[in-house]
Amino acid sequence: MIRVGVNGYGTIGKRVADAVAAQADMELVGVTKASPDYGVEAAARRGYDLYAAVEDRTDEFAAAGVDLAGAIGDLLDAVDVVVDCAPSGVGERNAPVYEAHDTKAVFQGGEDAAVADASFNARGRFEAARGADSVRVVSCNTTALSRLLAPLDETYGVEKARVTLVRRGGDPNETDRGPINDIVPDPATVPSHHGPDVNEILPDVTVDTAALKAPVTGMHTHSVNVTLETDPDPAAVRDLLADESRIFLVPEGAGIDGAGALKEYAADAGRPRGDLWENCVWEESISVTGRDLYLFQNVHQEADVVPENVDAIRAMASDVDAAESVARTNETLGVGLDSRLADGELVRTELPADD
Amino acid sequence: MIRVGVNGYGTIGKRVADAVAAQADMELVGVTKASPDYGVEAAARRGYDLYAAVEDRTDEFAAAGVDLAGAIGDLLDAVDVVVDCAPSGVGERNAPVYEAHDTKAVFQGGEDAAVADASFNARGRFEAARGADSVRVVSCNTTALSRLLAPLDETYGVEKARVTLVRRGGDPNETDRGPINDIVPDPATVPSHHGPDVNEILPDVTVDTAALKAPVTGMHTHSVNVTLETDPDPAAVRDLLADESRIFLVPEGAGIDGAGALKEYAADAGRPRGDLWENCVWEESISVTGRDLYLFQNVHQEADVVPENVDAIRAMASDVDAAESVARTNETLGVGLDSRLADGELVRTELPADD
Repeated sequence: MIRVGVNGYGTIGKRVADAVAAQADMELVGVTKASPDYGVEAAARRGYDLYAAVEDRTDEFAAAGVDLAGAIGDLLDAVDVVVDCAPSGVGERNAPVYEAHDTKAVFQGGEDAAVADASFNARGRFEAARGADSVRVVSCNTTALSRLLAPLDETYGVEKARVTLVRRGGDPNETDRGPINDIVPDPATVPSHHGPDVNEILPDVTVDTAALKAPVTGMHTHSVNVTLETDPDPAAVRDLLADESRIFLVPEGAGIDGAGALKEYAADAGRPRGDLWENCVWEESISVTGRDLYLFQNVHQEADVVPENVDAIRAMASDVDAAESVARTNETLGVGLDSRLADGELVRTELPADD
Repeated sequence: MIRVGVNGYGTIGKRVADAVAAQADMELVGVTKASPDYGVEAAARRGYDLYAAVEDRTDEFAAAGVDLAGAIGDLLDAVDVVVDCAPSGVGERNAPVYEAHDTKAVFQGGEDAAVADASFNARGRFEAARGADSVRVVSCNTTALSRLLAPLDETYGVEKARVTLVRRGGDPNETDRGPINDIVPDPATVPSHHGPDVNEILPDVTVDTAALKAPVTGMHTHSVNVTLETDPDPAAVRDLLADESRIFLVPEGAGIDGAGALKEYAADAGRPRGDLWENCVWEESISVTGRDLYLFQNVHQEADVVPENVDAIRAMASDVDAAESVARTNETLGVGLDSRLADGELVRTELPADD
């Protein structure tokens, strides 16, 4: 049983906490919050023990009527692994604290790669985290690009990938973010950090990325071009991607025309918080001219790294192998959407990860 | 056991179907769709029998591999009550079909009041629907205004209410709606239809409404002024509203600052689809100058009429009284959010409806 704490019960942390709590081989010891806002209710409702993220802020919680199990140091002493879900950049400041408590740590992609011993994606970079003291789960966009490029590179060879990322401006609850009426080059220099970050996972893949920011909150959208080393057949590419357990092919002709409908689809499927843990590749966008493959994919920035965090914990603190970890994580969370009706019955488009 | 069909398994219909299926005294016989888009998967996943909304379109479903239990006529013959959740204006065209099949019908607020024998809100207009052949559940905005004005009128007397409705441009999956960067008077004339529509529920309350449309998809926002006949105390108004089972007081100081955080709060609470069935009144907005009461409330346009539809069915087709129906609906759906931590435990701010 791996004892796990989540430091920062926010957008990512609350999802990671639920995912960890669902694993038979993990125990969620507790979660932290920096202040007693509405997130403490969610934690209380689920029966999670709450700790103050900052040692000297426990009074604030008491004033709000919130019982604490302790502060961050108490949590670190009680766990094998802490998942750092603090805001970008705060993780780096937390790193020495984790070291001082001799606690293994999983960081998020908002931190620089240097924060951890290894960058992590379950698809191809699982063993690099084996037994490490610290790993960094790469960002939502890098996770999605790695999941897509790995099977393409294995099957066809990637000569070069060129990707435009149209990123959401902020999460749905971030009222202070922009833009509100613009599409902003962000950064205006090419490549954005995403290309080099993919190389932390897939060092031999050549990829350039250009990033924009748009006035939406639901999902990121990638316009992907991959020049392959051998001629791809669009139907074979479709089948290749359909076989990936963390890629969801948005069914052609289902009337799903944007992030709004995609998230409604997820909610209809009973997903907690309408989360889409998979890359969402628009099936009808898969197109080929010569060796050039094109497609659009959507990325749910709040959700796609969640199963990766669970696998990262196993890679660091158990001897479970990649295929078994991914299969367990997928099964417990329900990764892999049912899709397509055949004779009135739902069938899965994806195979289990361990097939 | 009341046998119920839902004609139009879309934004409202899918929610009404789930709500009906959760009632011990109702049987959901089936739902209809006009075309085999992604909604058919949601129906199949829940095991709901699917019917074609249009008699001569069954071939389209067969071509998509979707099994049908029949077409709309078959459904109407099998149910006691049909809930019409067709797009605005289509309900009026459906009305003669329901009459021809001698099937009681619940219409939505997008239809003109003349479509049905009575307009309906469980708060104060339950008995008007008793045994009727057709009722119209008033629109999401009118529902919310009626829920708010009824207790104020009963307790203080309403001299006049003046409300500005800043409405969402479209639902999250409606990619073809606007505005995208404007706030549009809609209509530019005052009053909007909402004031007169409130009078279908509360005929003696004087209310003027002015309506705008904004580039958001999450919720409507109402800026409410009510001149009362007697001096209100803000704390007493707060308690009055907190006692209403279908009003949720957004807790002051919880860090919930807009519709995004409100819907995240609902998702955190495990609400299906993140639905907010209650008026969401911002506690700290409740203000008084003289006899003038001011407050902001948010309205989840996809959700707030859902419990009203369930109650409308009972009013038409059973002898259950209003308090008992509201209590049953609230209990089965989970209306009435837990809120506020006291000694680390969640407590409800609302009393059950039948207290």
